[in-house]
Amino acid sequence: MSSSFEYRRLDRNDAAVLLVDHQSGLCNIVGDFSPDDFKNNVLALADSAKYFQLPTILTTSFEDGPNGPLVPELKELFPEAPYIARPGQINAWDNDDFVNAVKATGKKQLIIAGVVTEVCVAFPALSAIEEGYEVFVIADASGTFNQTTRDAAWARMSAAGVQLMTWFGAAAELHRDWRNDIEGLGTLFSNHLPAYRNLISSYNAAKS
Amino acid sequence: MSSSFEYRRLDRNDAAVLLVDHQSGLCNIVGDFSPDDFKNNVLALADSAKYFQLPTILTTSFEDGPNGPLVPELKELFPEAPYIARPGQINAWDNDDFVNAVKATGKKQLIIAGVVTEVCVAFPALSAIEEGYEVFVIADASGTFNQTTRDAAWARMSAAGVQLMTWFGAAAELHRDWRNDIEGLGTLFSNHLPAYRNLISSYNAAKS
Amino acid sequence: MSSSFEYRRLDRNDAAVLLVDHQSGLCNIVGDFSPDDFKNNVLALADSAKYFQLPTILTTSFEDGPNGPLVPELKELFPEAPYIARPGQINAWDNDDFVNAVKATGKKQLIIAGVVTEVCVAFPALSAIEEGYEVFVIADASGTFNQTTRDAAWARMSAAGVQLMTWFGAAAELHRDWRNDIEGLGTLFSNHLPAYRNLISSYNAAKS
Amino acid sequence: MSSSFEYRRLDRNDAAVLLVDHQSGLCNIVGDFSPDDFKNNVLALADSAKYFQLPTILTTSFEDGPNGPLVPELKELFPEAPYIARPGQINAWDNDDFVNAVKATGKKQLIIAGVVTEVCVAFPALSAIEEGYEVFVIADASGTFNQTTRDAAWARMSAAGVQLMTWFGAAAELHRDWRNDIEGLGTLFSNHLPAYRNLISSYNAAKS
Amino acid sequence: MSSSFEYRRLDRNDAAVLLVDHQSGLCNIVGDFSPDDFKNNVLALADSAKYFQLPTILTTSFEDGPNGPLVPELKELFPEAPYIARPGQINAWDNDDFVNAVKATGKKQLIIAGVVTEVCVAFPALSAIEEGYEVFVIADASGTFNQTTRDAAWARMSAAGVQLMTWFGAAAELHRDWRNDIEGLGTLFSNHLPAYRNLISSYNAAKS
Amino acid sequence: MSSSFEYRRLDRNDAAVLLVDHQSGLCNIVGDFSPDDFKNNVLALADSAKYFQLPTILTTSFEDGPNGPLVPELKELFPEAPYIARPGQINAWDNDDFVNAVKATGKKQLIIAGVVTEVCVAFPALSAIEEGYEVFVIADASGTFNQTTRDAAWARMSAAGVQLMTWFGAAAELHRDWRNDIEGLGTLFSNHLPAYRNLISSYNAAKS
Amino acid sequence: MSSSFEYRRLDRNDAAVLLVDHQSGLCNIVGDFSPDDFKNNVLALADSAKYFQLPTILTTSFEDGPNGPLVPELKELFPEAPYIARPGQINAWDNDDFVNAVKATGKKQLIIAGVVTEVCVAFPALSAIEEGYEVFVIADASGTFNQTTRDAAWARMSAAGVQLMTWFGAAAELHRDWRNDIEGLGTLFSNHLPAYRNLISSYNAAKS
Amino acid sequence: MSSSFEYRRLDRNDAAVLLVDHQSGLCNIVGDFSPDDFKNNVLALADSAKYFQLPTILTTSFEDGPNGPLVPELKELFPEAPYIARPGQINAWDNDDFVNAVKATGKKQLIIAGVVTEVCVAFPALSAIEEGYEVFVIADASGTFNQTTRDAAWARMSAAGVQLMTWFGAAAELHRDWRNDIEGLGTLFSNHLPAYRNLISSYNAAKS
Repeated sequence: MSSSFEYRRLDRNDAAVLLVDHQSGLCNIVGDFSPDDFKNNVLALADSAKYFQLPTILTTSFEDGPNGPLVPELKELFPEAPYIARPGQINAWDNDDFVNAVKATGKKQLIIAGVVTEVCVAFPALSAIEEGYEVFVIADASGTFNQTTRDAAWARMSAAGVQLMTWFGAAAELHRDWRNDIEGLGTLFSNHLPAYRNLISSYNAAKS
Repeated sequence: MSSSFEYRRLDRNDAAVLLVDHQSGLCNIVGDFSPDDFKNNVLALADSAKYFQLPTILTTSFEDGPNGPLVPELKELFPEAPYIARPGQINAWDNDDFVNAVKATGKKQLIIAGVVTEVCVAFPALSAIEEGYEVFVIADASGTFNQTTRDAAWARMSAAGVQLMTWFGAAAELHRDWRNDIEGLGTLFSNHLPAYRNLISSYNAAKS
Repeated sequence: MSSSFEYRRLDRNDAAVLLVDHQSGLCNIVGDFSPDDFKNNVLALADSAKYFQLPTILTTSFEDGPNGPLVPELKELFPEAPYIARPGQINAWDNDDFVNAVKATGKKQLIIAGVVTEVCVAFPALSAIEEGYEVFVIADASGTFNQTTRDAAWARMSAAGVQLMTWFGAAAELHRDWRNDIEGLGTLFSNHLPAYRNLISSYNAAKS
Repeated sequence: MSSSFEYRRLDRNDAAVLLVDHQSGLCNIVGDFSPDDFKNNVLALADSAKYFQLPTILTTSFEDGPNGPLVPELKELFPEAPYIARPGQINAWDNDDFVNAVKATGKKQLIIAGVVTEVCVAFPALSAIEEGYEVFVIADASGTFNQTTRDAAWARMSAAGVQLMTWFGAAAELHRDWRNDIEGLGTLFSNHLPAYRNLISSYNAAKS
Repeated sequence: MSSSFEYRRLDRNDAAVLLVDHQSGLCNIVGDFSPDDFKNNVLALADSAKYFQLPTILTTSFEDGPNGPLVPELKELFPEAPYIARPGQINAWDNDDFVNAVKATGKKQLIIAGVVTEVCVAFPALSAIEEGYEVFVIADASGTFNQTTRDAAWARMSAAGVQLMTWFGAAAELHRDWRNDIEGLGTLFSNHLPAYRNLISSYNAAKS
Repeated sequence: MSSSFEYRRLDRNDAAVLLVDHQSGLCNIVGDFSPDDFKNNVLALADSAKYFQLPTILTTSFEDGPNGPLVPELKELFPEAPYIARPGQINAWDNDDFVNAVKATGKKQLIIAGVVTEVCVAFPALSAIEEGYEVFVIADASGTFNQTTRDAAWARMSAAGVQLMTWFGAAAELHRDWRNDIEGLGTLFSNHLPAYRNLISSYNAAKS
Repeated sequence: MSSSFEYRRLDRNDAAVLLVDHQSGLCNIVGDFSPDDFKNNVLALADSAKYFQLPTILTTSFEDGPNGPLVPELKELFPEAPYIARPGQINAWDNDDFVNAVKATGKKQLIIAGVVTEVCVAFPALSAIEEGYEVFVIADASGTFNQTTRDAAWARMSAAGVQLMTWFGAAAELHRDWRNDIEGLGTLFSNHLPAYRNLISSYNAAKS
Repeated sequence: MSSSFEYRRLDRNDAAVLLVDHQSGLCNIVGDFSPDDFKNNVLALADSAKYFQLPTILTTSFEDGPNGPLVPELKELFPEAPYIARPGQINAWDNDDFVNAVKATGKKQLIIAGVVTEVCVAFPALSAIEEGYEVFVIADASGTFNQTTRDAAWARMSAAGVQLMTWFGAAAELHRDWRNDIEGLGTLFSNHLPAYRNLISSYNAAKS
């Protein structure tokens, strides 16, 4: 048997994370997730990046205006990360500092999330695909106005070869094997999946 | 003008909180909220109870079985609270220790939430109404299987005179006036309303 | 404290179950539940009636026509139950045999479910309320064309004093205390609540 | 025939409008309407108040903080209206200036809308009902976090005797008869009901 | 046993039907039903009125303008019915000709449907309730802009004592007993319930 | 400019219609459309086939069993059409008579609809694609159990090159130009699009 | 790294806008958007076309009949634009005047929106793709009967290489960099994104 | 006519079934199906595998922890099946025993279902595609957190060439012809499609 399909699988040694415009103002115009779900998903992705020690790049658009500052949790999680406050470019890939920061990671897999999906995520995702990167958009850590806008954005990106994933799938694909660190991954899941935390609580109680 | 309606308004000096069966197993059969939303709502109610220093009573059903233990966050928040692990009574009001704990608070307003809505919440709510208490069910910190079950439970409780509220409305009604403690209430909201936290972040950034 | 509200609580010694027109043809025009959910809910109610040994009455409308026969599971569960194949009355309460069968139970609480909600359930429910019975409609074992029709039927019945419940709530209210029969109730739940069955499986595995 | 029901009908000579906390920050946490729908509904209510020359009162909560300023359109529409920037009271009815402004209108029917429904609308609505006012909440010009919160708020208000209406129903009830001013009402509808505007365009084109 | 509830049941000898403003323009602003569903429901109600020979009254609002003419099917079905083209009154009950036509029927039960629900249906429904009529609103033959508007309209009418029904429930309650005319009722259902027609087709095929 | 995409456009001279298993029993297990919508869509497609004089082939599966007979309207519309009552083949394309009937039409475009979508429609659609036909599935005249099943079926067919259309789009693409027959197409739309009929009624009334 | 994907990015120097059949009658049969949302999206696209000074072409189908006239706002916005009132062609691309107008723009990127999506938008979109144009359909300024019809239309267009976008994404991609005109783009967003306007209001208030 | 598309059709002689991680804990975090629907779908797939005598492989992840044991029904149905309790590999394809078991079947078509869709299903599906297998994911026997996660997982798998099917479609494609065993297939459908069982009951009753 032969196949023309190559499974481009997330590899913790070859992936970088780009967090685009998760700013307080913009997050409040996200309408395709409940605020609790969206906050959890974004922080879960961020904690995953941290946990897997992936090079992470932060960027913002006009943070000194209505878009608001980067949400404070992200700033605190990545104090050393490259932080590109773009002076005006809507597509982060149009900003040389940003592209240089991406290139400096030396990674060919890019994990992208941001606000809003069809602009701040889709534009650099398409640019990166064009340049030959493997692009994984974390769909549940990327928000936009409503379901219609999301559907159109997903269709455009998917047609271009972007792989749509969610934070949990990405973390699982990066980890490969529970035995690499059972407790670490368990903690990540416990912190961001209330249902999984409940499984752990029930299990521990029954065991004790 | 005259009115036969009396606005029974939550009063921090006359209210107690009953948290019924928020156990790890039972929480995983809740289907009318996303896990993130439900976890946040329950903890927001608990934090509100703490913040307003309302007497709080915890109770569980068969916690040494499939229902699982009380979710650990609630245990930690209320280490001194009466804790009634019911040996079998499904309606907590059928348990004398529970009713005595309620009576010991000396309050006539009862704020109730739990899992599942139509049983663990509705049964004691109806019993308490019958005994003359004013009952406020925190609808978004009470979960059940699905929307249909919820709708029926709400209709039954509402017809009995239960007031349906949500944690945010209860906190606002208890606080009465921001000037009583601007920072305290702001922190409560910031911790449990991501959209409100964003408003604060944007405001502070613009001010600075 | 005083209250004008009386909590009319299901009592296994004072309740009868009326299953109205759960016929194979009619069940296929139910559109407000998935077929799996509806089948499960109806059988869960029937198993509950059996488990609590409540007098149960079966009735059908025109079963020798397009409405089809009573679903076979119900026939098998209640081989001895009064079975009134109504010759034409749409409201079962207009059929003397049916009313006599109800009266013969000597119960004053009637648990009713059927197809379709706004007719086969609502009509006898309203008639029974008028005659002084306490009526509990099992909302999730009663189906109709769509959500709009359901909502209107619920509003009409609720306004008349019908208590809207679901099979799980009814079973819990009838049982009162797990200690009356832990294994029996657990089996009932395990058979009709896949999520609860999962809790049991996980618990037993952790314990073993 | 006799009836105990009195149809409390909106009367342009006896109604005042209370717009509570339609502030830019708070409006961005409304999740039970699309932003376009909500903006349109609020402005449609405001334009109706203007059109029917109803005394209108504006109030805000902490407008110098994260809640943000009153949305500018409302300020512009009612430059002469009483404007009560509440220093801290969450329930506007706890603010004497607000209640005095209401009383000064001399009206006994209060049309209320605001953000968020279960707090800024429900609290003064319940207070006003208690004082004997007839209260009409404009449900589609009042927003809150999500559908669950809305449902609970509506149930609480409805149980207290609040009449739930929408801006279009209120305008129609106030106007009574198209002949009072065909063009005026038509313009109001044309400006805020795109579908009605289309009917007019099609009609005029066919006529010409 | 005694009960304060009186089951006000539709009686073909005591009921009249009021069809309010089912005009071509207005029908196109209905958004809470699919066009196919709404058309079917309205015609099903009309056919029911015809079948049960209930006195039926037609009325329209401004039919020579954007609201458009009465939908032609209704005109054809009731060529002899009183037809009140209201010159301007929004509430049909404000029109003397309409009220006189209602009174001339000598019926005390009024079955009302129309477009839009919260105005053309709710206003005359509330007026009629106030005058002592028993009012049954056919909820699925009454349409409005969206689900939110519908929910508010239903809540207001229900609180006033209006009974919410759907066309199928009304037909069933009027008919009482299939034996009064099996073929007639079967034809009515076959024409307006595709699922029921399928049951008949399958039954006949199996029988043949 | 050049393009590798060829717009395979429905051509009334090169298209045949295959109606697969629209049987009374099977239609009652369709859950992804309301019964009114589905009936209308199927008949609209059938009327379109008739109107454009497209060769049409009817086929059924086990019509002498629970699946029930072909819905009578289709039989009546196409009395002369090839009618293949398949003795057992689930994929109609596995039946030689069916394939021969298709080939006998001499058309290379196949318009397919049926019940259920993922089987009776998808199987012959994929077989036909494999054989080089251009296949157009009429998605709204094809029904299945629920939205999930539909989504999976659409994805499988779309990936294979099936073009997903709806009856209205197909009729419009076949007609090409209103001037070919304004009244004929207008009648088709008026009969199956209540909203379009309303536009016509309003237009005619305004013109008169 | 290399890639076969070319990011075909909207370029204000190489794009034209085609607005197809946004007529008053047709807009009233759109059911996949709320009227407020749809009106806003269409006008937002139109304002964007104006703002970016893109050549814009208007076309209508049978505007002297039930379809109604072009919505007046579009006429006013583009008084000088080519305006092709098609005498009968359903696919605008079948009309030579229309194609010539497109060619006269000299642009190779076509931004298309219209009513209804699967016909008036999809047909010319597929024709243009076939002729080698890059086609961007503005999905939220294109409406149709319901979600099912929309989904099928999107799938067909997407498979053909059409890029699905929304007005906001298109505007952002055309603008490239906020510094090209901060105030202009801000005004466009403020006028058509109520949530963004609120961000601006809050920001300005906090700054002042 | 020619076609580049090959219809890769399920063949009972060339297919194996992989059931991945249907464990009691994991099943309780599934949120994109009702528990009744999901349980039914999984067991329907399992019964189909049994019925068609397809080689079936069971695997679990960490079954001695919070994930819980394999649901007991699957264990009982396949007592002889290869059972790979993976010690840590998240992607079952990373486990040699699992891959060897797959290879040992000698089949080239793999039918995969599991929990959660985007991990336990998608990872081995993509690996198997890469190795040249034909992969059919049973979408309704695979569950995950919510609809958003599901949509992203389906998009990723579909883009890789995975065929999305549901249990009913797979059973129908495997069976090919009812005449191979009418009673056997009928029983399978009767047990897992309540609506189909109703068709059979009605048919048998009418026939008798």
